[in-house]
Amino acid sequence: MAQLTDQQIAAEVDIKGIEEIAENANIPHDALEMYGKYKAKIDIHKIEGNEKDSKVVLVSAMNPTPAGEGKSTCTVGLADAFNKLEKNVMVALREPSLGPVMGIKGGATGGGRAQVLPMEEINLHFNGDLHAITTANNALSAFIDNHIHHGNKLNIDPRRVTWKRVLDMNDRALRQVVVGLGGPSRGVPREDGFDITVASEIMAVLCLASDLIDLKDKLSKIVFGYTYDREPVTVGQLEVEGALALLLKEAIKPNLVQTMEGTPALIHGGPFANIAHGCNSLIATNTARKLADIVVTECGFGSDLGGEKFMNIKARKGEFAPDAIVLVATIRALKMNGGVAKSDLGEPNVNALKEGIVNLEKHIENARKFGVEPIVALNDFVTDTDEERDFVLSWCKSKDVRVSLTKVWELGGEGGVELAEQVMEVLDEPQNFKQLYENELPIDQKIEKIVTEVYGGDGVIFTDKAKKQLAEIDRHGWGDFPVCMAKSQYSLSDDPSLLGRPTGFKVTVREVIAKTGAGFVVALTGDIMTMPGLPKVPSAVNMDVDSEGNSKGLF
Amino acid sequence: MAQLTDQQIAAEVDIKGIEEIAENANIPHDALEMYGKYKAKIDIHKIEGNEKDSKVVLVSAMNPTPAGEGKSTCTVGLADAFNKLEKNVMVALREPSLGPVMGIKGGATGGGRAQVLPMEEINLHFNGDLHAITTANNALSAFIDNHIHHGNKLNIDPRRVTWKRVLDMNDRALRQVVVGLGGPSRGVPREDGFDITVASEIMAVLCLASDLIDLKDKLSKIVFGYTYDREPVTVGQLEVEGALALLLKEAIKPNLVQTMEGTPALIHGGPFANIAHGCNSLIATNTARKLADIVVTECGFGSDLGGEKFMNIKARKGEFAPDAIVLVATIRALKMNGGVAKSDLGEPNVNALKEGIVNLEKHIENARKFGVEPIVALNDFVTDTDEERDFVLSWCKSKDVRVSLTKVWELGGEGGVELAEQVMEVLDEPQNFKQLYENELPIDQKIEKIVTEVYGGDGVIFTDKAKKQLAEIDRHGWGDFPVCMAKSQYSLSDDPSLLGRPTGFKVTVREVIAKTGAGFVVALTGDIMTMPGLPKVPSAVNMDVDSEGNSKGLF
Repeated sequence: MAQLTDQQIAAEVDIKGIEEIAENANIPHDALEMYGKYKAKIDIHKIEGNEKDSKVVLVSAMNPTPAGEGKSTCTVGLADAFNKLEKNVMVALREPSLGPVMGIKGGATGGGRAQVLPMEEINLHFNGDLHAITTANNALSAFIDNHIHHGNKLNIDPRRVTWKRVLDMNDRALRQVVVGLGGPSRGVPREDGFDITVASEIMAVLCLASDLIDLKDKLSKIVFGYTYDREPVTVGQLEVEGALALLLKEAIKPNLVQTMEGTPALIHGGPFANIAHGCNSLIATNTARKLADIVVTECGFGSDLGGEKFMNIKARKGEFAPDAIVLVATIRALKMNGGVAKSDLGEPNVNALKEGIVNLEKHIENARKFGVEPIVALNDFVTDTDEERDFVLSWCKSKDVRVSLTKVWELGGEGGVELAEQVMEVLDEPQNFKQLYENELPIDQKIEKIVTEVYGGDGVIFTDKAKKQLAEIDRHGWGDFPVCMAKSQYSLSDDPSLLGRPTGFKVTVREVIAKTGAGFVVALTGDIMTMPGLPKVPSAVNMDVDSEGNSKGLF
Repeated sequence: MAQLTDQQIAAEVDIKGIEEIAENANIPHDALEMYGKYKAKIDIHKIEGNEKDSKVVLVSAMNPTPAGEGKSTCTVGLADAFNKLEKNVMVALREPSLGPVMGIKGGATGGGRAQVLPMEEINLHFNGDLHAITTANNALSAFIDNHIHHGNKLNIDPRRVTWKRVLDMNDRALRQVVVGLGGPSRGVPREDGFDITVASEIMAVLCLASDLIDLKDKLSKIVFGYTYDREPVTVGQLEVEGALALLLKEAIKPNLVQTMEGTPALIHGGPFANIAHGCNSLIATNTARKLADIVVTECGFGSDLGGEKFMNIKARKGEFAPDAIVLVATIRALKMNGGVAKSDLGEPNVNALKEGIVNLEKHIENARKFGVEPIVALNDFVTDTDEERDFVLSWCKSKDVRVSLTKVWELGGEGGVELAEQVMEVLDEPQNFKQLYENELPIDQKIEKIVTEVYGGDGVIFTDKAKKQLAEIDRHGWGDFPVCMAKSQYSLSDDPSLLGRPTGFKVTVREVIAKTGAGFVVALTGDIMTMPGLPKVPSAVNMDVDSEGNSKGLF
């Protein structure tokens, strides 16, 4: 089986019609809006029932290697394992961004025998959600520049437009641009830049909105820039929140697909976890909570990034609590955190494991800090040795934390049954979920708390620019928002080269930006970029399609 | 009825499920890929039959006023009239661009009782086709800049990258930009600009391709720039035609919807006719030709723009001939061509009509020049008087051309039955379709022929830049391509203020650009812009959506 690609494995599966999946998930037929035979959007107004009783299992991870540790694979596999145990389960995932698909990843729908289907459509354009977000974002940009061009009644300072354009693309040449060149008929020249769509505040708004009216309200509150008098200017003042919400009226509906084993999956919303809040949409999670007894969901990168934001942003806005946390770890990532170079990860190295396992230790402590008991999922790789596996399993037992060697990539749900049983044990225990801070804590202290308690750092250095921005945030009354950290995913610190469990470091916050629509304050650390670039040989050059529309090269 | 908006009229119609429409159109159920309940994409491999026997009715027009003359409305109404006459008919239209919808038009799906449904979804995002084209276009831009950034093995001259980025947006600030600013990590700085998506060569390629393999072949032939040695560089040399075709694998499938009276409609592809070739996709037209006895299709603006390109580009590539040409005219547009200001068009003015009708005369002559007999559809407006109507009807009779007063806006298909009967008369006569020029004629002479014979001008002035470009086109062996004129839609000349039937003018060609993927050479005249701007108050400010997803403000 090792020689088959994910795409080849996916092509062999006998995929069910989405109507059958919906029926099994108790989704009424008239709530279903088909997108081809295997995908549907769901009209949430037609879903009855209560979202309070179901259990939410969050899949997070240790700090990943550049190749990723298979968190989506484990999330899908765990849901399939619950399915095998005849639990009423649903999985809620983020949607892939085309940028990484074309650039380095090829696909982002799990792997091996633990994938969501149809993988091609989910990886490409997926029901148009990201395109709708791109369009709404760039429509706002056009409305802003058009307003300035036609007399600028709102007195917008072109040098202080903070709203950037976006594309769902890895395109470094767009990071910093000048627009409006070429004379008076081409608008007012100003500096601008493009982010990747998943970094758009509109993505965050869509993922945190409870319904269309709430979405429109959040959109109207977005601050896109400042006047010459340094006062914020909002979408509501431009009177275009209705048009933007209209552009998003289909994108706000969660997408139903299936795992390879027929478990219903909602894939909806996809902010990155290093530059945004990194969780799938609240609407999808809540829809799953209405429909299933157990909801398995994931968040991006490690527990320091997506995990922390799931707790402090998503669960806070959604007023719910996770009931168990699965921490995905791999022997490869543990060795890398123990100092092994990427090229040598295939070699057995128990000493490096011993060095690197302190990284996992910190993520375990983090979960417990939030009052939720973790279960370690050791995601098996072909290069792992028994000695290495035994070391990790024993280490976990010595730390009194549940651990399971999961083989979902190779075996699908069957390979995750032991993990599922351990998760069930935790679900049967009462948890004591708590957020890390109250809304009222000042922004700088919120950041301080995240850095010291979640990252294990000594404190925070705010640049002069960040200090000025903090004062402005305070002046505008935005100090009660939670914080969304933008940080490297590779380290618990803001320095991607500090692996393992770094200590004695401080985190530098270079900018603090209020996202008044999404309702959080972004703290930018390190060199984190909001528009990725492509590698020298993008994965796109291996992609192809035949005369029947069958694709190649999506891994 | 006059007080209802198009959107309100559309909302009252009892729309049929798209499966029923498909069944009536003899589309097998397994060829149908549902997009919600009322839209579907069609897998053309599952459509049997021959495309040779059906009749193609092309709906074109006189030169329009800025508000448009209802050509889509007449096209839909004519198809519904054939339907009323129990003909096996299908209508094939272009898809709307979001730019004008958000800017000035509000919607582009016909009007009154002659609309295609569901109008909201067709106007917004419509099955993702334009987004897929935007994505493929901008992916290519990212691949180009990435190639230059990573060593530039192909020796591409950054100053001679002709491929522009696109957005489906009216956004004047993006007409001329500088990208790649901010230092070495942000790529190589160069001048760039954004076009509107409908102007992308990828839109033209999609509309002229016969299938996915042909699409990929055409994509690979696109020249996106030149080397430092002035040699053309193609998509094939970048090895990304497979990835681009993969991104377009769903967009290439025609979209099935319905008219208000249940006539099956294929809406697919939407290049503008003033800056691109202005016809819906060849795949959709050919699919309709397989399924229906009569295919009613339109092309953009007047017979001088979309009409001429339908004949010389689309029909040439598709190797078929139109069997009748309907020319839409309105009393308002005739008066405007007779010198009446836009604000006074509501006033009766037979003298202005007499002055302006020479414009219609030229379009009638043009149709006959292509060997196809025209029928004038006088599209009735509430402000028209009987005296004005009688004048136009008598004038047409005096010119020995069929004419019908059509009331499809008010009455739907019923209001177009007389027109349909006249078209039937023409369909029963043998036509003698011929293109204006052979492939072998040099590009400058092709342009000369279009200007003198179709526009009625005295000749062509080529700028020095255009002359140099013509020489290069010749050197590269692209001289056999047909020509795609970019010209103002308001005049038969290149000066939008020359209304009626101007004579004694010359057309200035300022640039000549080979579109080697689409397989034509674009000649840019006048001030024609490939990225529109928004008006001071865009129609977007009147748009809204309620909690159930019902929209407002799409007219």
